[in-house]
Amino acid sequence: MAIVVQKYGGSSVADVDKIRNVARRIIQTREKDNQVVVVVSAMGDTTDDLIDLAHRITDQPDPRELDVLLSTGEIVSSTLMAMALKQMGHPAVSLSGAQAGIHTDASFSRARILKIEARRIFKELEKGNTVIVAGFQGITDGMDVTTLGRGGSDTTAVALAVSLGAGVCERFTDVDGVYTADPRLVPEARKLPEIGYEEMLELATYGSKVLHHRAVELAGVYNMPILVASSFTDSPGTLIHGGASMEVRNKVRGIAHDLDVAKITVIGVPDKPGVAAGIFEPLAKAGVSVDTIVQNAGTGNLADLTFTVAKGDLKKAMDVIKPIVQSAGAKDTVSDAKLGKVSIVGTGMQNAPGYAARMFSALSKENINIQLITTSEIRITVIIDEARVKDAVRALHRAFELEKA
Amino acid sequence: MAIVVQKYGGSSVADVDKIRNVARRIIQTREKDNQVVVVVSAMGDTTDDLIDLAHRITDQPDPRELDVLLSTGEIVSSTLMAMALKQMGHPAVSLSGAQAGIHTDASFSRARILKIEARRIFKELEKGNTVIVAGFQGITDGMDVTTLGRGGSDTTAVALAVSLGAGVCERFTDVDGVYTADPRLVPEARKLPEIGYEEMLELATYGSKVLHHRAVELAGVYNMPILVASSFTDSPGTLIHGGASMEVRNKVRGIAHDLDVAKITVIGVPDKPGVAAGIFEPLAKAGVSVDTIVQNAGTGNLADLTFTVAKGDLKKAMDVIKPIVQSAGAKDTVSDAKLGKVSIVGTGMQNAPGYAARMFSALSKENINIQLITTSEIRITVIIDEARVKDAVRALHRAFELEKA
Repeated sequence: MAIVVQKYGGSSVADVDKIRNVARRIIQTREKDNQVVVVVSAMGDTTDDLIDLAHRITDQPDPRELDVLLSTGEIVSSTLMAMALKQMGHPAVSLSGAQAGIHTDASFSRARILKIEARRIFKELEKGNTVIVAGFQGITDGMDVTTLGRGGSDTTAVALAVSLGAGVCERFTDVDGVYTADPRLVPEARKLPEIGYEEMLELATYGSKVLHHRAVELAGVYNMPILVASSFTDSPGTLIHGGASMEVRNKVRGIAHDLDVAKITVIGVPDKPGVAAGIFEPLAKAGVSVDTIVQNAGTGNLADLTFTVAKGDLKKAMDVIKPIVQSAGAKDTVSDAKLGKVSIVGTGMQNAPGYAARMFSALSKENINIQLITTSEIRITVIIDEARVKDAVRALHRAFELEKA
Repeated sequence: MAIVVQKYGGSSVADVDKIRNVARRIIQTREKDNQVVVVVSAMGDTTDDLIDLAHRITDQPDPRELDVLLSTGEIVSSTLMAMALKQMGHPAVSLSGAQAGIHTDASFSRARILKIEARRIFKELEKGNTVIVAGFQGITDGMDVTTLGRGGSDTTAVALAVSLGAGVCERFTDVDGVYTADPRLVPEARKLPEIGYEEMLELATYGSKVLHHRAVELAGVYNMPILVASSFTDSPGTLIHGGASMEVRNKVRGIAHDLDVAKITVIGVPDKPGVAAGIFEPLAKAGVSVDTIVQNAGTGNLADLTFTVAKGDLKKAMDVIKPIVQSAGAKDTVSDAKLGKVSIVGTGMQNAPGYAARMFSALSKENINIQLITTSEIRITVIIDEARVKDAVRALHRAFELEKA
């Protein structure tokens, strides 16, 4: 009997009817002679509600206590799912992260999984139970509850699939697969039947938000296939796996975009060692996540340093760096909060410079001004005016003929 | 440094402001050079809300899963309390039942505490932490979460106080002590400064509902003093302890009442072995809790068997026993759902028959008809018309001069 790990997101278990719907899908998988381990997220907005509750007690909830509090959300949904399965005559048992043997480090709110001791899960599977694991959580060696941070339930599912030797990790949500671009922006966007880990990573990190990048990274390291599909339909999803990249090299696979981009430019940075560190270390300490960083080759001994942050972090970032760059001798610091990011993603682009040219030409024809350009092995990203992101995504989708299989 | 165990009920932690209020009280106790272990219930109606949620999934929630689900209520309140304390600059840590080492049997929804392995609690106390334990829950040897049933948080607190060698278990709720009668019925009811375990047991079982009888029993076995007081005022509460009974023997200590009483009488039961078992075993299997049982000495070989149940169980009880008593040859089965129960409680009454006479005389003067009488070592109980319960409690309070200290 093969082991299948399935993960259902918060929108798939948001209410009692949806939990029953998922229970029926689990039973279908079970009846195909599989042993099934299911990872569930908290119901709907539960996690946000619990965070609000903690913040009504204190501005800065203790991280250890907050993790215990948040872990209850997934425990609730896991017990309800097990009840629903049993009510349908199907043996099932819920396990918390601790009971499932998910051991993490002690970094509360962003713990990393160290190992999974799967004895209890195997014991329950042998008894004929479908095992429902509360996602997003683990336990330290000191028996303290931790949470894995946002996207943690996806990571739980992939880690369990690897540890249990599952054939596939199936990840169900309200999105039915990975598209060549966001279908809300590009009506002709096409669902990809398969995609490679690295491509998926670039798409997920750069705004597709179908699957958390930590889960994709982990799956890539262990070569665990992930099927992304909808819990509301039976349409085939997208298989994220290691084989895909080889077969489809030298193709743009999709267009990713992100509307949550603010840009900060420090003008006239003295071109000497330690200046960049002097800017980015205080930002990290202040909890500001910096995304793209670009430093233009300076004329003489001065350079312009540009980086992007989430819009919500812009004010904090400016407050942190203004005094620093002033004392470092920079000329000025300017910011722009109305930006967006558009990327083309596909393996092998680095070896085919034609892709960059086609991208810039397509944007130029739409009269879209490019503010920043960055590239990776499998991605070319431009930062542009927020108001033109939709036009850019559509133009690039057409230019690379992504509507065609 | 002495260890004090405090327990705060659901109404004392019902919202964020009340949690902060309790946190301040805990700090006051801490600042009197005590080590403090706090047991909390779930916030307000959380437990009932979770039960409703489970019942929206299935009529008969799996007991194991229901226990895990319900246990989250106390975990939530324990984390919020620890957060509130830390925010006030006071070191604190929350522990689940499992983390606190509360080991139970595997009787889900009504587990019994087997032992407490208090290593973790002692470790946290040594670190200077106030320890907030989620009440009402424990863990089996197989690492499954259990709940102790209603009143379980009181039991958790007493069991912890015993295991930790605490000097006292303080139990705070919205009631500020044990009264000679329900103050809503008897305005002149007097708060008792102290009461014995057995008396408290009779008062609690027979309707005073200040403190769960399991907790009182356990405290009595281990001679652990319990202080019952209000979390909203600073007025002195009632100390339940072993010394009280000796000092105050031969006194009526209080009047208890219960309005939730239905009576079933089986008329003309054949007076032979096995008949009573044939009636009460099926009731127990149907989950009907039977309270008072009285069998009148029959004339000839027939007897009348009367017992009381909660009003909500009357229909079920009648459905269960009607076919049974018919086939057993009883003449008829009649029921009355509009009854109440009134008891006088006090040690030493058994040796002083004058108490019964005074009780019946006081009721007679009020023209209150007595339907059933039962007695224990320290209690005399009458079942009367529901509509006369209030009059009966007042009359008895006056007759035994309970308003006088």
